[in-house]
Amino acid sequence: MGRNPARRAALLDAAIEVLARDGARGLTFRAVDMQAGVPIGTASNYFASRDDLLGQAGRHIHHRLAATPQEVDDFSREFADAGPSRALAERMLRALLRRIDEDRAAYLALLELRLEATRRPGLRATLTETIRASHAANMQAYRDFALPGTPVTALLLYYAMSGLIVELLTLPDAITDLPPDEVISALVTHLVPEP
Amino acid sequence: MGRNPARRAALLDAAIEVLARDGARGLTFRAVDMQAGVPIGTASNYFASRDDLLGQAGRHIHHRLAATPQEVDDFSREFADAGPSRALAERMLRALLRRIDEDRAAYLALLELRLEATRRPGLRATLTETIRASHAANMQAYRDFALPGTPVTALLLYYAMSGLIVELLTLPDAITDLPPDEVISALVTHLVPEP
Repeated sequence: MGRNPARRAALLDAAIEVLARDGARGLTFRAVDMQAGVPIGTASNYFASRDDLLGQAGRHIHHRLAATPQEVDDFSREFADAGPSRALAERMLRALLRRIDEDRAAYLALLELRLEATRRPGLRATLTETIRASHAANMQAYRDFALPGTPVTALLLYYAMSGLIVELLTLPDAITDLPPDEVISALVTHLVPEP
Repeated sequence: MGRNPARRAALLDAAIEVLARDGARGLTFRAVDMQAGVPIGTASNYFASRDDLLGQAGRHIHHRLAATPQEVDDFSREFADAGPSRALAERMLRALLRRIDEDRAAYLALLELRLEATRRPGLRATLTETIRASHAANMQAYRDFALPGTPVTALLLYYAMSGLIVELLTLPDAITDLPPDEVISALVTHLVPEP
């Protein structure tokens, strides 16, 4: 198996591009090699199977979409200065939406993987673990920053943000009642209590 | 063009099965004919193009997932008896979730169409219209049953239900903090005011 971490990451980035552009059915080792601009045969040297490639792509998407160290520093400073607040919850949700908007391929690839997981039990098991770990990290961040509310608050925010993101990434002109940032403001106003 | 409405509906039902099972890339006229058990060439006689087939499938999905006449009667009777209430809002959301759970292929096919729409401008335009009309009907139902809250309440419920549905249909074992019906109860408690 290939062991170069930078090469592996480049192959996973290429897999995400292929997933977003061509759908799960377009994701072959060959398509990944071509997208990454590496010799045909490289991806098959780094991933044991198509399920392995898809599963690692799912984890890689979550790395790409995670809060940046700069963002975490900013949130931590604001928390240290002002304590727990609804404003911080709103800022964190807006930052999430901005990261996804700047890396649309990553989230679209995740939706492709979710649909492919309904057909491939192996991928479903791996992706379930990835989403579970990501969700646990989200819930932990909610506690770390002492955001107002309960775990149910964080859970409802997760579902609503997911729905908003799917809508914005796939059919942005269909539902335009409120601009995205105002949807987030309304969510925080309704769901997050005063600290 | 083929004009038999029952035949057209059967072809669209077949298209939904193919979309859910094989993804958008698997949807060809030939695959629809085979799924519907009709002579090869039938689908191409009913749909002017692949975009036409995909767009009509999007509308057909919304027909399949709409509230049944029986449900509308029940909601109307409850509304006539008890007036506007949070309980009715909760019952309507649970009925929506049950319909989708009983017709998973339809909602999975819709997600496939949403992703395919990111690649096909013609489909994107048609599906945008379909979702816009469906959203307008949802908002109208919210007013017709005088459900408590404002249009923003209905909008936030829509986003949160969408996120919940995507999660349940694609990776039901990943996020299990609350059973789906309790998520709906929590949403209504947090988002829908007392009438």
